[in-house]
This record gives sequence, C-alpha cells and structure tokens, in this order.
Amino acid sequence: MNATRVDWLREAERIGRRLDLLGAISEGEGALNRPPFTRSLCRAMEETARWMEEAGLRPAVDAFGNLRGWGVRKTQKPVLLIGSHLDTVPGGGRFDGALGILLGISAAEILQDRAGSLPFALDILAFQEEEGARFRSGCLGSRAFLGLLEEKDWNLEDSSGISLREAHDSFSIQGWPRMEPDPQEKLLGYCEAHIEQGPQLEALGVPLGVALGIVAQERLLLSFLGEGGHAGCVPMSARRDALCAAAAFVAFVEEASRREPGAVATVGELHCLPGAVNVIPKRVDLSVDLRHPEEAALDRLSQALLERAEEIGRDRGIEVGWRRTQRLPPVRSDPDWQDRLSSVITAIQGKAPRLWSGAGHDAGVFGRLVPMVLLFVRCRGGVSHDPAELVSPSDTARALEALVGFVEGFLR
Amino acid sequence: MNATRVDWLREAERIGRRLDLLGAISEGEGALNRPPFTRSLCRAMEETARWMEEAGLRPAVDAFGNLRGWGVRKTQKPVLLIGSHLDTVPGGGRFDGALGILLGISAAEILQDRAGSLPFALDILAFQEEEGARFRSGCLGSRAFLGLLEEKDWNLEDSSGISLREAHDSFSIQGWPRMEPDPQEKLLGYCEAHIEQGPQLEALGVPLGVALGIVAQERLLLSFLGEGGHAGCVPMSARRDALCAAAAFVAFVEEASRREPGAVATVGELHCLPGAVNVIPKRVDLSVDLRHPEEAALDRLSQALLERAEEIGRDRGIEVGWRRTQRLPPVRSDPDWQDRLSSVITAIQGKAPRLWSGAGHDAGVFGRLVPMVLLFVRCRGGVSHDPAELVSPSDTARALEALVGFVEGFLR
Repeated sequence: MNATRVDWLREAERIGRRLDLLGAISEGEGALNRPPFTRSLCRAMEETARWMEEAGLRPAVDAFGNLRGWGVRKTQKPVLLIGSHLDTVPGGGRFDGALGILLGISAAEILQDRAGSLPFALDILAFQEEEGARFRSGCLGSRAFLGLLEEKDWNLEDSSGISLREAHDSFSIQGWPRMEPDPQEKLLGYCEAHIEQGPQLEALGVPLGVALGIVAQERLLLSFLGEGGHAGCVPMSARRDALCAAAAFVAFVEEASRREPGAVATVGELHCLPGAVNVIPKRVDLSVDLRHPEEAALDRLSQALLERAEEIGRDRGIEVGWRRTQRLPPVRSDPDWQDRLSSVITAIQGKAPRLWSGAGHDAGVFGRLVPMVLLFVRCRGGVSHDPAELVSPSDTARALEALVGFVEGFLR
Repeated sequence: MNATRVDWLREAERIGRRLDLLGAISEGEGALNRPPFTRSLCRAMEETARWMEEAGLRPAVDAFGNLRGWGVRKTQKPVLLIGSHLDTVPGGGRFDGALGILLGISAAEILQDRAGSLPFALDILAFQEEEGARFRSGCLGSRAFLGLLEEKDWNLEDSSGISLREAHDSFSIQGWPRMEPDPQEKLLGYCEAHIEQGPQLEALGVPLGVALGIVAQERLLLSFLGEGGHAGCVPMSARRDALCAAAAFVAFVEEASRREPGAVATVGELHCLPGAVNVIPKRVDLSVDLRHPEEAALDRLSQALLERAEEIGRDRGIEVGWRRTQRLPPVRSDPDWQDRLSSVITAIQGKAPRLWSGAGHDAGVFGRLVPMVLLFVRCRGGVSHDPAELVSPSDTARALEALVGFVEGFLR
C-alpha cells in the first residue's frame, strides 16, 4: 500500500470493525470488561496478533505478557515503538487503549513497503494492565517492558486475593511465541495515539491534538472522625457529624480547584459510616485526586486543601487524618516530536491544539526514559470508561493519517 | 417487700447484674447483637421469664412472640402495662430496651404484696423487633400486641431474604406457655422507662425526665444524577459532579435544621457512585431523617430542603429525584399521666424536666390508642446504640423509685 494513495476512511472503517470485534471480547455478559491476565485478554491478544501478522509484523509476547508486533529490522537501527493497551476498566468502552494499538497496526501495514527504508525498526505494542483496574496500580505492562517493575509489584493483589505473580503464571503465555529484545536494543522513542478522554478537542471543533505531556498528580486519603449518635435524640448544637464536616471539605475541594487555573480535583470515593438512615455519621473516609501540569501549583492546591481540612476539623471538633498515597511528577512530550506531530496535524486540520493529558498513559512511563509523543483523538462528549465511548470513523481516519505522517516525517 | 423500706440502690445493683447477664446473650462473638426471632432473643426471653416468675408474675408469650409477665388479676379491673423491648441493634448497648423491662419487673416485685389492692392488674411486657434492625420496620412487637400489624408486614424480609412470617414460624414459641388476652380486656394505659438516648438530662444534671411525647418524623431518599468522567480529563468548568451537588445539599440540611428550633435533621446514608478515586461521581443517593415535635415545622423544613435540592440541581445541571419513605405524626404522652410522673420525679430530684423524645418507642404505638407515659433515664454522654451505652446504678435506683411511685400514685 502506498501512503499517498490510502483511502483513509476505508482504513478507518476496517479499524472500526476490529474495534467492534475486540469490544465483544469481554469477561462475562454485559458491559465490556477485559482485565489483564484473563481469558478475554488472551483472546483479544490472539485477534490482535493475527492483524499484526497481516500487517507484516511478527507477533510475540514478552516475559510480562505484553504483545509486540516486531517490524522488519536491520542491524544497528534503533526502534520506534507505537503502542497502547489492550485491557479495559469494568464497564469500559471500545476505544480506550485498543484504538491506539489498531491505529499502530494499520500504520505499520500502510508503511510496510517502505519499512526497509525507514531509519528505524517500527514495532507495535499492546500492553496489559495500563488501567490498574485489577491490581490497583497502573501501567504495569509498560513499566515491566522498560524494566521499571519492582519486586514488590509482583505481590499486588486483585480483589480476590490473587497476586500479580499468580495471575501472570496462570496466564497462557506459554502457548505464545516468545521474544525478548536484544539487550543492546536502542529505543528511538514511543508514540501513542489515544482518545482524549475529555471534552477539549470537541469544544475546539477539531479531531486531533498534541499532548504537551501528562500532568503531575497527587492522591490523598482523608478521614473525618466525629461522634455517632441517634438521629432523633442528639440536638443539632451537640453534634459532631462527620458527614457535615466532609461535605464542607468537598465544597472547598471544588471551590479551590476552580480558583487554580489548569487544576482539576475530584473526590471520587466517599464512605459514610456507619451509614444508617437514623444514625449520625461517625466517620467519613474520602479520596482526593489532584492534577496540574505544574508541580508548584499542585503543591499550592494540596496545601490549601489540607489546611482547610484541619480548619474544618478544629471548628467542628472532628479529628481529621490524611495520607498521601500517590505523587507523580509531570511527564513532558518530547518538544521536537511535538513539533513534528503538530506540523502533520496542522496539514490535516488547519491547526494543532496542544493540551495537557490529565490521564496517565503508557506514554508517561516511556516519557521518563525516551522521547515520547502522545496524539489525542476527539471522543464524543469527552466520555471514556463507559460503554458510550465513541470516536467517529472520520476522526479515526484523521488519526491514522497523522500517525502515518508522523512516521513518514522521519524519512525526510 | 414494702416500698417504703426498699433499698433502691441494692435493687438497682441487682438490675445491673441482670443487664450484664442479658448483655452477654448475643448472636456471635463480639459486640452485642440480639435480633428478633433468634436463638439469643429466645435465651434472653428465658432469663427474663425466670425473673418475672421470681417477681410473682406468670410469664407467657403471645401469638407474635412477645413475652408478657401476667400479674395477679381480679375480674373487671383494667390492666396497666409496663414494658419495653428485648431486641437490640447490631453493636448495641445493654440498656436500650432491657433497662425498661427489668425496671418493670423489679417494680412489680416491690409492689407484689399490694398487687391485690391496686385498682388495676400490673403486667410487664418484653417486645421483639422494636429497633427494626432486622426487618427494617420498627415496633413490630408492640404493633402486633395492639392488633396494628398489617398482613403485608408479615412479608417484610431481613437481609438474608427471610420473611417475618418465616422467622416467626421457626422461632421456638411452641415450647412456651401461651396466653392471649381476654378480648374484653381493658387497658388502663402503658408506661415505659427508657434511656434518653440524648444528652439533655446530662446537661441538666438530673437522672430523670418526663417525655412530652414522641416527635413527628419524616424520611426522604434523594438521588443526585450528574455525569461521570475521568478525574484527570474533564475540566472543572465542564463537570456535573453528583457529589459536589450532594455536598451542597448536606450543608443546607445542617444549616436549615439549625435555623428551625427543635428540629433535628440527619443525612445518615450517602452512597457515591461509581466510587473510584479517579472517576467523577455520576450519582449520589442519600437519606434524610427529619424530626420535630410540631408537624407544621416539619413540613416547613422538609419543603425548604426539597426546594433547595431542586435549586442545586438546576444550578448544576444535576437531575434530582426524591421520595418520602416515612411520615409519622407526633404522639403525645397523656397529660394527666405526665403530671403524675412529674410530681413523683420532682419529689425525688427536685425538678422534672419535660422533653420530647426524638426516638421512636413502643410507647409511641400505645400512645395512639391508650394513655401512655414515657420516663427518660439519663445515659452517659447521651450515647446509645453503642457498647459504650451506660446508666449509673444510682440513676437506675432513681428510675425504679419513680416507676414504683408512679404506680403507687394510683392507690391514693
């Protein structure tokens, strides 16, 4: 196939059919759920491997259980990786992860004839457990790929008490061709296409954008410990209601993050105990997820929230406890690769918005070690992690065109 | 025993030992849990029946499974009932319910010699499922006693799907002496001693109080339906976060009920969905429990809360749903009986505070049909439904003295 004569929309429709096919490969009935190291993930890998073969790639798994489509290679050339993840959250959508892999495979197929003349080998990657939905720790596959998995990570357990080690060992990697990279392998870098998972491209009216990088992130757990009591018997003035304290805090999280441009803050989990209609809440546990491109702003916001929580506690006689469960610095896309991708996108749609990724991605793991760039694709309503997740065929076509153009850019 | 020579404290200590004994009769290990129609409830009934016999009463169960200690009776005399409940909430205390039964039994024993000269028969009652902790509907035993149980109540199910009918039928009532009241039986009225379950008597520095009655009560369920989304990807300005809306509502519930003197309002249950650290809350379901002595004030408060919920929904693009799951009118203690009890209490402790009961009681069921009075006993910190529940022996002594004095009052 010659890239200059590609019918992008037709290719996009083929990708759409493949997405439908993968979207039907799920644990159990009902909404899409494809956790890592499961039968459904294995079946999705089998399909993906078949498409890799059709595209002239050689599918094989690595020691962790990531699928890699090996491109034609000559000695001494570095490797350009295009990838994303094959696992989904429970009740997820068809596009998150899978779209990036299928775009990569189609791009490799389109570029197949010229693979020998590329100044690098082009490999396509399909990772497992990017979402962290099973083992509550994200990007395990890409971290393993880069040798960043720690021994303790293998002891992570799913909700049934099965460890990552056990899940890995019982997964049928054995039946697959295995291939590990040459220890001397040099990575040129990593490129990932992914749905935006937000409404910004839709608001701007364009299908594609370039991620400036992945924002810094912090997670806090707070507990508000008050005093229980009978809902009918304790006068309002004598109460130390943990939920009223937590509600004041939730209101402040929203208010403070709105005041800090570029910040998002979310209380996503809230547990009210004992949780009975006629009992004053004694304890509330809640999570806060804070993100901002700049670490200084993240610090400022985090500090303000904790000060306010303590103030609420003092005012209301509520004991406030907290701990920081995660802190990740921002990861920037490579500036040169951003420019390369921008010029391709500008040629396609007239402009190339650059936006921060509020979500973590496998690209963020690569970005700590090698040049990385992340191509965002508009998704309807900004919706992700939901069966309603949708990318139009014409947007998929634009994304494929941009990805092929980005790779071709290295030929010039 | 002659009431004029009673060693009240010694009697109270005996009651204390009995409370300890009952407090050890529980389902499973750990915190006290004595649900209706269980082995533990049956064992507690056996002990209580033994003490009734010692007090000169004739223990028997009724068709529902309530225990009644029948006092000496002559034809034509009406019946004065003293009672409370034998079931507890899970993780409950030793005093809630049991104290009132044991005070009644001790009072009957003290008055035993003069039982024949009383202008009524004195019976002591121990009800089941006052708390509603098992079948989620309270005062089932007292409602059954008064013929107020409806056919549909028998289909109420516990959390294991066992119906009230099934639980009742498998309960070993069969082994007990059965006795049903004469259909011509005339009730003089019902008297109940119960821990206050609030901090008012403690604040006033007296052991006893007279309940004016049981306040009116309303329960609402509200749902706030917004839009989910990725916590990192949706800008604050584009969010319709159900938890932020619910937090604003919780704050208003507290604020509005503080503004309405005599009112209490509690959001006791709150479920945040889907409830993941990195997902914007899509839906929040919560309960509101509202109480006030006056129905007009309750209506005003309820109306204000629902208007505010709808306003929050409009402002935030959140769909607000609600339904009223309970509405109970206030039940007043009999004015003459209040005065009788007050004068006895005033003789004991110098004053007799009258206060509303924010909690429901078996007395509330009786109060709809016959004269009722409710004697409140101070409990430490106002704590109830908790293992820390505590009434001092000297307060128990005062309560017994008041109860005996109240009954003796009818001799004069």
